[in-house]
Amino acid sequence: MKPRSGWHVPMSDIARNTINPIRRIVDTIELNPHPDKQMIALSIGDPTVFGNLEPAKVVVDAVVEAVQAIKFNGYAPSSGTATAKEAIAQYTSTPEFRVSAKDVYICSGCSSALEACITVLANAGDNILVPRPGFPLYQTLAHCIGIQTKFYDLLPERGWEADLEMLDAQIDSGTRAIVVNNPSNPCGSVFGKEHLRRILEIAARRRVPIIADEIYNHFVFPESEFYYIASLTDEVPVLSCSGLTKRFLVPGWRMGWITVHDQNHVLKDVRVGLQNLSTRTIGANTLVQAALPTILSDTPAEFFSATLQLVQANAEIAFKRLSEIKGLKPVMPSGAMYMMVGIDMARLPEFETDLQVVEAMVTEQSVFCLPGKCFDLANYVRLVLTVPQQFMHEACERLAQFFADHYVQSDADPSAEDVAVGRADLEPAVTSDVRRVAGVGAD
Amino acid sequence: MKPRSGWHVPMSDIARNTINPIRRIVDTIELNPHPDKQMIALSIGDPTVFGNLEPAKVVVDAVVEAVQAIKFNGYAPSSGTATAKEAIAQYTSTPEFRVSAKDVYICSGCSSALEACITVLANAGDNILVPRPGFPLYQTLAHCIGIQTKFYDLLPERGWEADLEMLDAQIDSGTRAIVVNNPSNPCGSVFGKEHLRRILEIAARRRVPIIADEIYNHFVFPESEFYYIASLTDEVPVLSCSGLTKRFLVPGWRMGWITVHDQNHVLKDVRVGLQNLSTRTIGANTLVQAALPTILSDTPAEFFSATLQLVQANAEIAFKRLSEIKGLKPVMPSGAMYMMVGIDMARLPEFETDLQVVEAMVTEQSVFCLPGKCFDLANYVRLVLTVPQQFMHEACERLAQFFADHYVQSDADPSAEDVAVGRADLEPAVTSDVRRVAGVGAD
Repeated sequence: MKPRSGWHVPMSDIARNTINPIRRIVDTIELNPHPDKQMIALSIGDPTVFGNLEPAKVVVDAVVEAVQAIKFNGYAPSSGTATAKEAIAQYTSTPEFRVSAKDVYICSGCSSALEACITVLANAGDNILVPRPGFPLYQTLAHCIGIQTKFYDLLPERGWEADLEMLDAQIDSGTRAIVVNNPSNPCGSVFGKEHLRRILEIAARRRVPIIADEIYNHFVFPESEFYYIASLTDEVPVLSCSGLTKRFLVPGWRMGWITVHDQNHVLKDVRVGLQNLSTRTIGANTLVQAALPTILSDTPAEFFSATLQLVQANAEIAFKRLSEIKGLKPVMPSGAMYMMVGIDMARLPEFETDLQVVEAMVTEQSVFCLPGKCFDLANYVRLVLTVPQQFMHEACERLAQFFADHYVQSDADPSAEDVAVGRADLEPAVTSDVRRVAGVGAD
Repeated sequence: MKPRSGWHVPMSDIARNTINPIRRIVDTIELNPHPDKQMIALSIGDPTVFGNLEPAKVVVDAVVEAVQAIKFNGYAPSSGTATAKEAIAQYTSTPEFRVSAKDVYICSGCSSALEACITVLANAGDNILVPRPGFPLYQTLAHCIGIQTKFYDLLPERGWEADLEMLDAQIDSGTRAIVVNNPSNPCGSVFGKEHLRRILEIAARRRVPIIADEIYNHFVFPESEFYYIASLTDEVPVLSCSGLTKRFLVPGWRMGWITVHDQNHVLKDVRVGLQNLSTRTIGANTLVQAALPTILSDTPAEFFSATLQLVQANAEIAFKRLSEIKGLKPVMPSGAMYMMVGIDMARLPEFETDLQVVEAMVTEQSVFCLPGKCFDLANYVRLVLTVPQQFMHEACERLAQFFADHYVQSDADPSAEDVAVGRADLEPAVTSDVRRVAGVGAD
């Protein structure tokens, strides 16, 4: 018999350093919903979980047709089929902004697209700049292979525009990319053309390529307009990541892509690298690839506007109601499917951290929002806005009750009068103030 | 205006070191098929390319049903849904060999499963052992993150059994895993129970876990039997990789999985690591996951046997005919969908390398086989056996013509009498001889 001991099989450094901050934080929260109140989870960035948002019929039919054709079961080229790439190029292009099929790399979901972009541009020891608050996957994908991340702040007082001074100051000789996420998760903010141009100016001057996480492309309310950042530069190289996930309401299908924008012809090497990386796991499901031309060209405009109407109506409900609640500072979004809401911790003396507040909101009201810490911004919670409208109303009322129960008014500080900060209230603010107000650094 | 020069955007080391040897070799081959002869590509390990092999109707129907249910569009847990994991556990289990859902990690195809297993066990600078000849993806996935590979030979004279002495000798203090691929790509060989036990003895004695690439599980001719290597040990930890790709004839669907076998309870850390890694790209297509229980339980036995009959019939056609051809040494497979055929380069004085032979076979006969160099074994070619039977016949006749045109008989060496080496002819052979005969090291 062999001895039973003596085996030592540790996980690798990459596996150990692959840390999903949301998971890690959420796993530490005690989730004990109130037994008499149905749980309302405003935490999950999956528009399908409530069953109120379904893909367009033409999308479903296109995949059924692809399955029944029995022609799309074989391996595709690792970076995608020519037909699917052409469809993505046409979908992305406008008369002024041309994308061609050779610029497209299809990936297994937008997460894989981001993984490829981060991996292709930076080595261990290099760094990339990421927004704060921001989607934590950028850090997960970078840190696991030894790439550092440095933050640049998004400013709630400026509708979550980037702190451009900070962005510029954070770039150093090891910076290999700036991640620009627009529209933003978790903020729901949408950058205007001028702001994008100012980011591009910095990238051009400092010679840093941009990784554009544009998975929420076109996912903006009618008053806003979405611009691909690459459409506003003829110099800065941009790797743009997108996919079907959010706009087409099919996150589980794992259909994402990268479009390479390189008017300045400096990404020849990087294109080879993206192709190389695609050979590791051989791309995305071929059935969805086969359906892609129909999905991208035939989904009716009404489908997209219906989703946006639901999200915007929820945003307005939440913004209006939460603005009335002492202790909450909602920031009105312009797109995507989230709203960030500041919590005035100074007026909630029972709680030491926003995690405790989140925990108590579940325990007492069965309302679960992700704590801002998941996005590296303390003293905020993120609300998902794709829920059925009655849940949004109900969640707001429960939060009103929660803060009525816990908020302690200070005589000296009439903060209840000015808690709501919307896009209409924008005021320039110096960085140090903003960071204090936003609670940055407390984390 | 910004200056147009001064940008330097190299690809990262990981991207540069992600090398697909097949692509690199095939790209150097001049493929100019004979204009009067239809190309017969025996090169592509995709059973669907000739259109003669389709998935079972129940499989297609199950996916259509999953699409039409409009219930499986959301994110799945990153390592797969509970239902799909349970289905895989049941599919893999036998009365003597139990796999439970908690042991299953679903991945985007078997390539992703292999990537996770290699990545979770080894660090940069460590090494893993891989078979030679072998599927080159193991090297691609290891080298790109700095993991070294060391070969152990498979011996054609022993029906491609592993050279156990060499396997043992190659293990050093940096060895983190032995990759065992059974049934084998490119050999089509199937390890018997005793041989697997001898591999396990080495792994147990040297305390090295096994990564079992078992994507061709059950894909064996009726005379052979497939054993999961994990089913033969109660000590050695095994990460087994499999998926729908080959047996169910749907490589493009990207549905793969890992089953963790750990009777000795030494993989607790590694399980965490696999879960961590799954969060990077969030798993496999949910429509296929939803269909998995039906696919795995309802595909009729006749479906599998029909595929095997076609492959075996082609194997017999090729083995019989190629054995008659002077200059060729086919090795009869027992499963999977490939046959390795040795080329007697000494009798082909016009050609310096097997790559030149492969090139000339395309130019003169429009028959394309992958050169053994793609699998790190010179002076062989790999034939794919899933083609329609008439193509197999035609390809063999063309190869007969090719070798009739180029083979030069030596008076001194009656090699034409003993070129065929089948399983029936097995003779123990000392390693040095075998390696010389197989051409190992020429590469």
